[in-house]
Amino acid sequence: MQGLFITIEGSDGSGKSTQLNLLKEYLLKNNMDHIFTREPGGTKIGEDIRSILLSKENDCMDDKTEVLLYAASRAQHVQEKIKPALQQGKIVISDRFIDSSLVYQGFARGIGLEQVGLINNWAIGGLMPDITFLLDLDYTIGLTRKEKQKDLDRLELEKDHFHEKVVNGYRHLKDKYPKRIIVLDATQDIKDIHNSIVSHITNKINKSQ
Amino acid sequence: MQGLFITIEGSDGSGKSTQLNLLKEYLLKNNMDHIFTREPGGTKIGEDIRSILLSKENDCMDDKTEVLLYAASRAQHVQEKIKPALQQGKIVISDRFIDSSLVYQGFARGIGLEQVGLINNWAIGGLMPDITFLLDLDYTIGLTRKEKQKDLDRLELEKDHFHEKVVNGYRHLKDKYPKRIIVLDATQDIKDIHNSIVSHITNKINKSQ
Repeated sequence: MQGLFITIEGSDGSGKSTQLNLLKEYLLKNNMDHIFTREPGGTKIGEDIRSILLSKENDCMDDKTEVLLYAASRAQHVQEKIKPALQQGKIVISDRFIDSSLVYQGFARGIGLEQVGLINNWAIGGLMPDITFLLDLDYTIGLTRKEKQKDLDRLELEKDHFHEKVVNGYRHLKDKYPKRIIVLDATQDIKDIHNSIVSHITNKINKSQ
Repeated sequence: MQGLFITIEGSDGSGKSTQLNLLKEYLLKNNMDHIFTREPGGTKIGEDIRSILLSKENDCMDDKTEVLLYAASRAQHVQEKIKPALQQGKIVISDRFIDSSLVYQGFARGIGLEQVGLINNWAIGGLMPDITFLLDLDYTIGLTRKEKQKDLDRLELEKDHFHEKVVNGYRHLKDKYPKRIIVLDATQDIKDIHNSIVSHITNKINKSQ
Protein backbone atom coordinates (compact mmCIF):
# COMPACT_ATOMS: atom_id res chain seq x y z
CA MET A 1 0.00 0.00 0.00
CA GLN A 2 1.42 3.38 -1.02
CA GLY A 3 0.26 6.63 0.57
CA LEU A 4 0.25 7.50 4.24
CA PHE A 5 -2.65 6.81 6.59
CA ILE A 6 -2.89 9.23 9.53
CA THR A 7 -5.60 9.33 12.19
CA ILE A 8 -6.29 11.92 14.87
CA GLU A 9 -7.83 10.82 18.14
CA GLY A 10 -8.75 12.45 21.43
CA SER A 11 -11.54 13.06 23.87
CA ASP A 12 -14.13 15.82 23.37
CA GLY A 13 -12.60 19.27 23.68
CA SER A 14 -9.04 18.08 23.07
CA GLY A 15 -8.65 20.36 20.03
CA LYS A 16 -8.81 17.89 17.15
CA SER A 17 -10.70 20.26 14.85
CA THR A 18 -8.19 23.10 15.39
CA GLN A 19 -5.27 20.81 14.55
CA LEU A 20 -7.05 19.33 11.54
CA ASN A 21 -7.61 22.83 10.15
CA LEU A 22 -3.96 23.81 10.63
CA LEU A 23 -2.82 20.56 9.00
CA LYS A 24 -5.14 21.21 6.04
CA GLU A 25 -3.53 24.62 5.47
CA TYR A 26 -0.05 23.11 5.70
CA LEU A 27 -0.71 20.29 3.22
CA LEU A 28 -2.35 22.68 0.75
CA LYS A 29 0.52 25.19 0.99
CA ASN A 30 3.05 22.43 0.38
CA ASN A 31 1.14 20.82 -2.51
CA MET A 32 0.95 17.48 -0.75
CA ASP A 33 -1.71 15.26 -2.32
CA HIS A 34 -4.19 14.39 0.45
CA ILE A 35 -7.77 13.84 1.55
CA PHE A 36 -9.44 14.66 4.86
CA THR A 37 -12.19 12.42 6.12
CA ARG A 38 -13.99 11.61 9.37
CA GLU A 39 -15.74 8.96 11.43
CA PRO A 40 -18.39 8.01 11.85
CA GLY A 41 -19.12 8.98 8.27
CA GLY A 42 -16.75 9.69 5.39
CA THR A 43 -19.05 8.13 2.77
CA LYS A 44 -22.71 8.63 1.90
CA ILE A 45 -23.66 5.36 3.64
CA GLY A 46 -21.35 6.25 6.56
CA GLU A 47 -22.97 9.66 6.99
CA ASP A 48 -26.41 8.00 7.07
CA ILE A 49 -25.11 5.69 9.82
CA ARG A 50 -23.58 8.73 11.59
CA SER A 51 -26.95 10.41 11.89
CA ILE A 52 -28.43 7.31 13.56
CA LEU A 53 -25.45 7.10 15.94
CA LEU A 54 -25.36 10.72 17.01
CA SER A 55 -29.10 11.51 17.10
CA LYS A 56 -30.20 12.52 20.58
CA GLU A 57 -33.52 10.74 19.94
CA ASN A 58 -31.73 7.39 19.98
CA ASP A 59 -30.91 7.36 23.68
CA CYS A 60 -32.27 3.81 23.97
CA MET A 61 -29.52 2.47 21.68
CA ASP A 62 -28.11 -0.84 22.84
CA ASP A 63 -24.32 -0.90 23.39
CA LYS A 64 -23.87 -3.77 20.93
CA THR A 65 -25.87 -1.88 18.30
CA GLU A 66 -23.52 1.08 18.81
CA VAL A 67 -20.43 -1.12 18.33
CA LEU A 68 -21.85 -2.69 15.17
CA LEU A 69 -22.97 0.63 13.64
CA TYR A 70 -19.52 2.19 14.12
CA ALA A 71 -17.92 -0.91 12.61
CA ALA A 72 -20.37 -0.84 9.66
CA SER A 73 -19.55 2.79 8.94
CA ARG A 74 -15.81 1.98 9.20
CA ALA A 75 -15.95 -1.00 6.81
CA GLN A 76 -17.59 1.20 4.16
CA HIS A 77 -15.12 4.02 4.84
CA VAL A 78 -12.07 1.78 4.33
CA GLN A 79 -13.40 0.06 1.22
CA GLU A 80 -14.90 3.05 -0.58
CA LYS A 81 -12.62 5.91 0.42
CA ILE A 82 -9.46 5.18 2.45
CA LYS A 83 -8.06 2.21 0.53
CA PRO A 84 -8.52 3.76 -2.96
CA ALA A 85 -6.88 7.03 -1.84
CA LEU A 86 -3.90 5.20 -0.33
CA GLN A 87 -3.54 3.14 -3.51
CA GLN A 88 -3.27 6.44 -5.40
CA GLY A 89 -0.40 7.40 -3.09
CA LYS A 90 -2.34 10.07 -1.19
CA ILE A 91 -2.01 11.15 2.42
CA VAL A 92 -5.28 10.20 4.13
CA ILE A 93 -6.14 12.02 7.37
CA SER A 94 -9.10 10.69 9.32
CA ASP A 95 -10.73 12.50 12.24
CA ARG A 96 -11.17 9.38 14.46
CA PHE A 97 -10.82 5.72 13.38
CA ILE A 98 -10.61 2.30 15.07
CA ASP A 99 -9.11 3.65 18.34
CA SER A 100 -12.30 5.63 18.98
CA SER A 101 -14.30 2.39 19.02
CA LEU A 102 -11.75 0.63 21.20
CA VAL A 103 -11.91 3.50 23.69
CA TYR A 104 -15.56 4.66 23.58
CA GLN A 105 -17.25 1.26 23.21
CA GLY A 106 -14.58 -1.19 24.35
CA PHE A 107 -13.36 0.77 27.33
CA ALA A 108 -15.91 3.45 28.35
CA ARG A 109 -19.04 1.35 27.63
CA GLY A 110 -17.28 -1.64 29.20
CA ILE A 111 -17.77 -4.06 26.30
CA GLY A 112 -14.09 -4.97 26.32
CA LEU A 113 -11.19 -4.17 24.01
CA GLU A 114 -10.92 -7.73 22.76
CA GLN A 115 -14.49 -8.10 21.45
CA VAL A 116 -14.58 -4.60 19.93
CA GLY A 117 -11.12 -5.22 18.45
CA LEU A 118 -12.19 -8.52 16.86
CA ILE A 119 -15.21 -6.99 15.11
CA ASN A 120 -13.31 -3.91 13.98
CA ASN A 121 -10.22 -5.71 12.74
CA TRP A 122 -12.52 -7.79 10.59
CA ALA A 123 -14.37 -4.65 9.41
CA ILE A 124 -11.17 -2.86 8.30
CA GLY A 125 -9.48 -5.98 6.92
CA GLY A 126 -6.31 -5.15 8.86
CA LEU A 127 -5.82 -1.65 7.39
CA MET A 128 -4.34 0.08 10.44
CA PRO A 129 -3.10 3.71 10.44
CA ASP A 130 0.61 4.42 9.88
CA ILE A 131 0.53 7.17 12.50
CA THR A 132 -2.09 8.07 15.10
CA PHE A 133 -1.90 11.43 16.86
CA LEU A 134 -3.53 11.33 20.27
CA LEU A 135 -4.41 14.69 21.79
CA ASP A 136 -4.22 13.93 25.48
CA LEU A 137 -6.17 16.11 27.90
CA ASP A 138 -7.65 15.73 31.36
CA TYR A 139 -11.38 15.18 30.95
CA THR A 140 -12.29 18.07 33.25
CA ILE A 141 -10.51 20.56 30.99
CA GLY A 142 -12.11 18.97 27.92
CA LEU A 143 -15.58 19.28 29.42
CA THR A 144 -15.03 22.94 30.37
CA ARG A 145 -14.00 23.67 26.77
CA LYS A 146 -17.09 21.84 25.46
CA GLU A 147 -19.49 23.69 27.78
CA LYS A 148 -19.41 26.69 25.45
CA GLN A 149 -20.70 24.55 22.59
CA LYS A 150 -24.48 24.59 22.21
CA ASP A 151 -25.55 21.58 20.21
CA LEU A 152 -23.98 18.49 21.77
CA ASP A 153 -24.58 15.03 20.21
CA ARG A 154 -25.66 11.77 21.92
CA LEU A 155 -22.13 10.79 22.92
CA GLU A 156 -21.03 14.26 23.96
CA LEU A 157 -24.06 14.33 26.28
CA GLU A 158 -22.80 11.31 28.28
CA LYS A 159 -22.08 11.78 31.99
CA ASP A 160 -18.71 13.03 33.34
CA HIS A 161 -17.71 9.53 34.40
CA PHE A 162 -17.98 8.35 30.79
CA HIS A 163 -15.62 11.11 29.58
CA GLU A 164 -13.15 10.23 32.33
CA LYS A 165 -13.15 6.62 31.14
CA VAL A 166 -12.55 7.81 27.56
CA VAL A 167 -9.40 9.70 28.58
CA ASN A 168 -8.17 6.73 30.62
CA GLY A 169 -8.97 4.41 27.71
CA TYR A 170 -6.81 6.46 25.33
CA ARG A 171 -3.95 6.42 27.86
CA HIS A 172 -4.26 2.64 28.06
CA LEU A 173 -4.13 2.35 24.26
CA LYS A 174 -1.01 4.48 23.90
CA ASP A 175 0.77 2.00 26.21
CA LYS A 176 -0.47 -0.87 24.07
CA TYR A 177 0.58 0.63 20.72
CA PRO A 178 3.58 2.85 21.57
CA LYS A 179 5.01 2.74 18.02
CA ARG A 180 1.85 3.79 16.19
CA ILE A 181 0.32 6.23 18.69
CA ILE A 182 2.05 9.57 19.22
CA VAL A 183 0.82 11.34 22.33
CA LEU A 184 0.58 15.13 22.25
CA ASP A 185 -0.12 17.14 25.38
CA ALA A 186 -3.24 19.09 24.39
CA THR A 187 -2.62 21.85 26.96
CA GLN A 188 0.40 22.99 24.92
CA ASP A 189 0.32 26.01 22.63
CA ILE A 190 -1.71 25.28 19.46
CA LYS A 191 1.23 26.15 17.19
CA ASP A 192 3.60 23.85 19.10
CA ILE A 193 1.21 20.93 18.73
CA HIS A 194 0.87 21.69 15.02
CA ASN A 195 4.65 21.85 14.53
CA SER A 196 5.05 18.54 16.29
CA ILE A 197 2.42 16.89 14.04
CA VAL A 198 4.09 18.24 10.90
CA SER A 199 7.51 17.10 12.03
CA HIS A 200 6.30 13.54 12.69
CA ILE A 201 4.61 13.38 9.28
CA THR A 202 7.70 14.73 7.49
CA ASN A 203 9.93 12.21 9.27
CA LYS A 204 7.66 9.34 8.32
CA ILE A 205 7.60 10.39 4.66
CA ASN A 206 11.39 10.83 4.55
CA LYS A 207 11.91 7.42 6.11
CA SER A 208 9.69 5.67 3.58
CA GLN A 209 11.36 7.29 0.56
CA MET B 1 -37.10 -17.23 29.38
CA GLN B 2 -40.88 -17.67 29.15
CA GLY B 3 -42.84 -17.02 25.97
CA LEU B 4 -42.27 -18.62 22.58
CA PHE B 5 -39.94 -17.22 19.93
CA ILE B 6 -40.91 -18.10 16.37
CA THR B 7 -39.21 -16.94 13.17
CA ILE B 8 -40.31 -17.28 9.56
CA GLU B 9 -37.68 -17.56 6.86
CA GLY B 10 -37.63 -18.08 3.12
CA SER B 11 -36.44 -16.69 -0.17
CA ASP B 12 -38.27 -13.89 -1.98
CA GLY B 13 -41.65 -14.99 -3.26
CA SER B 14 -41.91 -17.98 -0.91
CA GLY B 15 -45.13 -16.68 0.63
CA LYS B 16 -43.97 -15.48 4.05
CA SER B 17 -46.34 -12.50 4.11
CA THR B 18 -49.37 -14.63 3.29
CA GLN B 19 -48.55 -17.07 6.09
CA LEU B 20 -47.82 -14.26 8.55
CA ASN B 21 -51.24 -12.75 7.86
CA LEU B 22 -53.03 -16.08 8.36
CA LEU B 23 -51.11 -16.68 11.59
CA LYS B 24 -52.06 -13.20 12.83
CA GLU B 25 -55.75 -13.98 12.29
CA TYR B 26 -55.39 -17.32 14.08
CA LEU B 27 -53.62 -15.89 17.15
CA LEU B 28 -56.13 -13.05 17.44
CA LYS B 29 -59.10 -15.40 17.12
CA ASN B 30 -57.68 -17.65 19.85
CA ASN B 31 -56.74 -14.81 22.21
CA MET B 32 -53.10 -15.84 22.26
CA ASP B 33 -50.91 -12.99 23.57
CA HIS B 34 -48.38 -12.21 20.83
CA ILE B 35 -46.42 -9.61 18.88
CA PHE B 36 -45.43 -9.59 15.23
CA THR B 37 -42.17 -7.99 14.21
CA ARG B 38 -39.73 -8.00 11.31
CA GLU B 39 -36.11 -7.71 10.23
CA PRO B 40 -34.30 -5.67 9.36
CA GLY B 41 -36.27 -3.26 11.54
CA GLY B 42 -38.68 -3.94 14.37
CA THR B 43 -37.57 -0.89 16.38
CA LYS B 44 -37.21 2.80 15.51
CA ILE B 45 -33.41 2.46 15.27
CA GLY B 46 -33.81 -0.80 13.35
CA GLU B 47 -36.19 0.79 10.84
CA ASP B 48 -33.65 3.60 10.27
CA ILE B 49 -31.00 0.92 9.60
CA ARG B 50 -33.48 -0.91 7.34
CA SER B 51 -33.85 2.11 5.08
CA ILE B 52 -30.06 2.30 4.62
CA LEU B 53 -29.89 -1.44 3.89
CA LEU B 54 -32.71 -1.63 1.37
CA SER B 55 -32.25 1.70 -0.43
CA LYS B 56 -31.53 1.18 -4.12
CA GLU B 57 -29.20 4.20 -3.99
CA ASN B 58 -26.78 2.23 -1.81
CA ASP B 59 -25.65 -0.19 -4.50
CA CYS B 60 -22.01 0.47 -3.58
CA MET B 61 -22.49 -1.02 -0.11
CA ASP B 62 -19.56 -3.16 1.00
CA ASP B 63 -20.47 -6.76 1.97
CA LYS B 64 -18.97 -6.33 5.45
CA THR B 65 -21.00 -3.15 5.98
CA GLU B 66 -24.10 -5.12 5.04
CA VAL B 67 -23.29 -7.87 7.58
CA LEU B 68 -22.65 -5.34 10.35
CA LEU B 69 -25.79 -3.28 9.65
CA TYR B 70 -28.03 -6.37 9.79
CA ALA B 71 -26.34 -7.41 13.03
CA ALA B 72 -26.74 -3.89 14.51
CA SER B 73 -30.44 -3.87 13.70
CA ARG B 74 -30.76 -7.38 15.23
CA ALA B 75 -28.98 -6.48 18.49
CA GLN B 76 -31.38 -3.57 19.02
CA HIS B 77 -34.35 -5.76 18.06
CA VAL B 78 -33.48 -8.44 20.63
CA GLN B 79 -32.73 -6.02 23.45
CA GLU B 80 -35.55 -3.54 22.97
CA LYS B 81 -38.38 -5.70 21.68
CA ILE B 82 -37.96 -9.49 21.53
CA LYS B 83 -36.47 -10.17 24.97
CA PRO B 84 -38.97 -7.98 26.92
CA ALA B 85 -41.93 -9.57 25.09
CA LEU B 86 -40.67 -13.10 25.82
CA GLN B 87 -40.12 -12.17 29.46
CA GLN B 88 -43.79 -11.17 29.55
CA GLY B 89 -44.64 -14.67 28.31
CA LYS B 90 -45.74 -13.55 24.84
CA ILE B 91 -45.46 -15.39 21.54
CA VAL B 92 -43.02 -13.40 19.39
CA ILE B 93 -43.18 -13.94 15.64
CA SER B 94 -40.40 -12.38 13.59
CA ASP B 95 -40.44 -12.09 9.80
CA ARG B 96 -36.76 -13.07 9.27
CA PHE B 97 -34.04 -13.30 11.94
CA ILE B 98 -30.46 -14.64 12.25
CA ASP B 99 -30.90 -17.31 9.52
CA SER B 100 -31.47 -14.58 6.93
CA SER B 101 -27.98 -13.20 7.66
CA LEU B 102 -26.40 -16.64 7.64
CA VAL B 103 -27.98 -17.33 4.25
CA TYR B 104 -27.93 -13.94 2.47
CA GLN B 105 -24.56 -12.64 3.71
CA GLY B 106 -22.80 -15.80 4.88
CA PHE B 107 -23.81 -18.05 2.01
CA ALA B 108 -25.02 -15.97 -0.97
CA ARG B 109 -22.48 -13.11 -0.57
CA GLY B 110 -19.81 -15.72 0.18
CA ILE B 111 -18.59 -14.21 3.48
CA GLY B 112 -18.89 -17.58 5.21
CA LEU B 113 -21.32 -18.97 7.76
CA GLU B 114 -18.70 -19.01 10.52
CA GLN B 115 -17.80 -15.30 10.46
CA VAL B 116 -21.42 -14.14 10.04
CA GLY B 117 -22.45 -16.58 12.78
CA LEU B 118 -19.82 -15.25 15.20
CA ILE B 119 -20.89 -11.62 14.81
CA ASN B 120 -24.59 -12.44 14.99
CA ASN B 121 -24.38 -14.78 17.96
CA TRP B 122 -22.63 -11.98 19.82
CA ALA B 123 -25.29 -9.48 18.64
CA ILE B 124 -28.23 -11.60 19.88
CA GLY B 125 -26.49 -12.77 23.06
CA GLY B 126 -27.48 -16.37 22.28
CA LEU B 127 -31.23 -15.72 22.03
CA MET B 128 -32.09 -18.25 19.30
CA PRO B 129 -35.66 -18.94 18.08
CA ASP B 130 -37.59 -21.87 19.56
CA ILE B 131 -39.06 -22.71 16.15
CA THR B 132 -38.11 -21.50 12.68
CA PHE B 133 -40.47 -22.12 9.79
CA LEU B 134 -38.64 -22.28 6.47
CA LEU B 135 -40.79 -21.84 3.39
CA ASP B 136 -38.83 -23.78 0.81
CA LEU B 137 -39.28 -22.93 -2.86
CA ASP B 138 -37.23 -23.27 -6.04
CA TYR B 139 -35.75 -19.86 -6.79
CA THR B 140 -37.17 -19.81 -10.34
CA ILE B 141 -40.74 -20.08 -8.98
CA GLY B 142 -39.98 -17.39 -6.35
CA LEU B 143 -38.68 -15.01 -8.99
CA THR B 144 -41.72 -15.55 -11.24
CA ARG B 145 -43.98 -14.71 -8.28
CA LYS B 146 -41.92 -11.58 -7.52
CA GLU B 147 -41.97 -10.35 -11.14
CA LYS B 148 -45.50 -9.02 -10.61
CA GLN B 149 -44.26 -6.77 -7.78
CA LYS B 150 -43.32 -3.26 -8.90
CA ASP B 151 -41.07 -1.74 -6.29
CA LEU B 152 -38.23 -4.17 -5.55
CA ASP B 153 -35.57 -3.31 -2.93
CA ARG B 154 -31.75 -3.51 -3.20
CA LEU B 155 -31.60 -7.20 -2.25
CA GLU B 156 -34.61 -8.26 -4.28
CA LEU B 157 -32.91 -6.64 -7.30
CA GLU B 158 -29.90 -9.00 -7.06
CA LYS B 159 -29.16 -11.32 -10.03
CA ASP B 160 -30.79 -14.76 -10.43
CA HIS B 161 -27.61 -16.51 -9.32
CA PHE B 162 -27.81 -14.75 -5.94
CA HIS B 163 -31.38 -15.95 -5.38
CA GLU B 164 -30.36 -19.51 -6.31
CA LYS B 165 -27.63 -19.33 -3.66
CA VAL B 166 -30.16 -18.08 -1.09
CA VAL B 167 -32.41 -21.12 -1.64
CA ASN B 168 -29.41 -23.48 -1.47
CA GLY B 169 -28.19 -21.68 1.66
CA TYR B 170 -31.51 -22.25 3.43
CA ARG B 171 -31.42 -25.94 2.44
CA HIS B 172 -27.93 -26.19 3.90
CA LEU B 173 -29.09 -24.58 7.19
CA LYS B 174 -32.04 -26.94 7.60
CA ASP B 175 -29.56 -29.84 7.53
CA LYS B 176 -27.43 -28.07 10.14
CA TYR B 177 -30.30 -27.26 12.53
CA PRO B 178 -32.84 -30.07 11.93
CA LYS B 179 -34.48 -29.71 15.36
CA ARG B 180 -35.11 -25.96 15.20
CA ILE B 181 -35.89 -25.49 11.51
CA ILE B 182 -39.15 -26.89 10.17
CA VAL B 183 -39.21 -27.04 6.39
CA LEU B 184 -42.50 -26.40 4.63
CA ASP B 185 -42.93 -27.00 0.91
CA ALA B 186 -44.05 -23.57 -0.33
CA THR B 187 -45.73 -24.99 -3.44
CA GLN B 188 -48.39 -26.59 -1.22
CA ASP B 189 -51.85 -25.14 -0.81
CA ILE B 190 -51.77 -21.97 1.36
CA LYS B 191 -54.26 -23.41 3.86
CA ASP B 192 -52.25 -26.65 4.24
CA ILE B 193 -49.09 -24.68 5.04
CA HIS B 194 -51.00 -22.58 7.56
CA ASN B 195 -52.46 -25.67 9.27
CA SER B 196 -49.03 -27.20 9.49
CA ILE B 197 -47.61 -24.02 11.13
CA VAL B 198 -50.46 -23.90 13.66
CA SER B 199 -50.09 -27.57 14.51
CA HIS B 200 -46.32 -27.18 15.18
CA ILE B 201 -46.93 -24.14 17.41
CA THR B 202 -49.69 -25.89 19.35
CA ASN B 203 -47.50 -28.95 19.88
CA LYS B 204 -44.62 -26.81 21.14
CA ILE B 205 -46.88 -24.96 23.60
CA ASN B 206 -48.43 -28.21 24.86
CA LYS B 207 -45.02 -29.77 25.38
CA SER B 208 -43.74 -26.83 27.40
CA GLN B 209 -46.77 -26.74 29.71
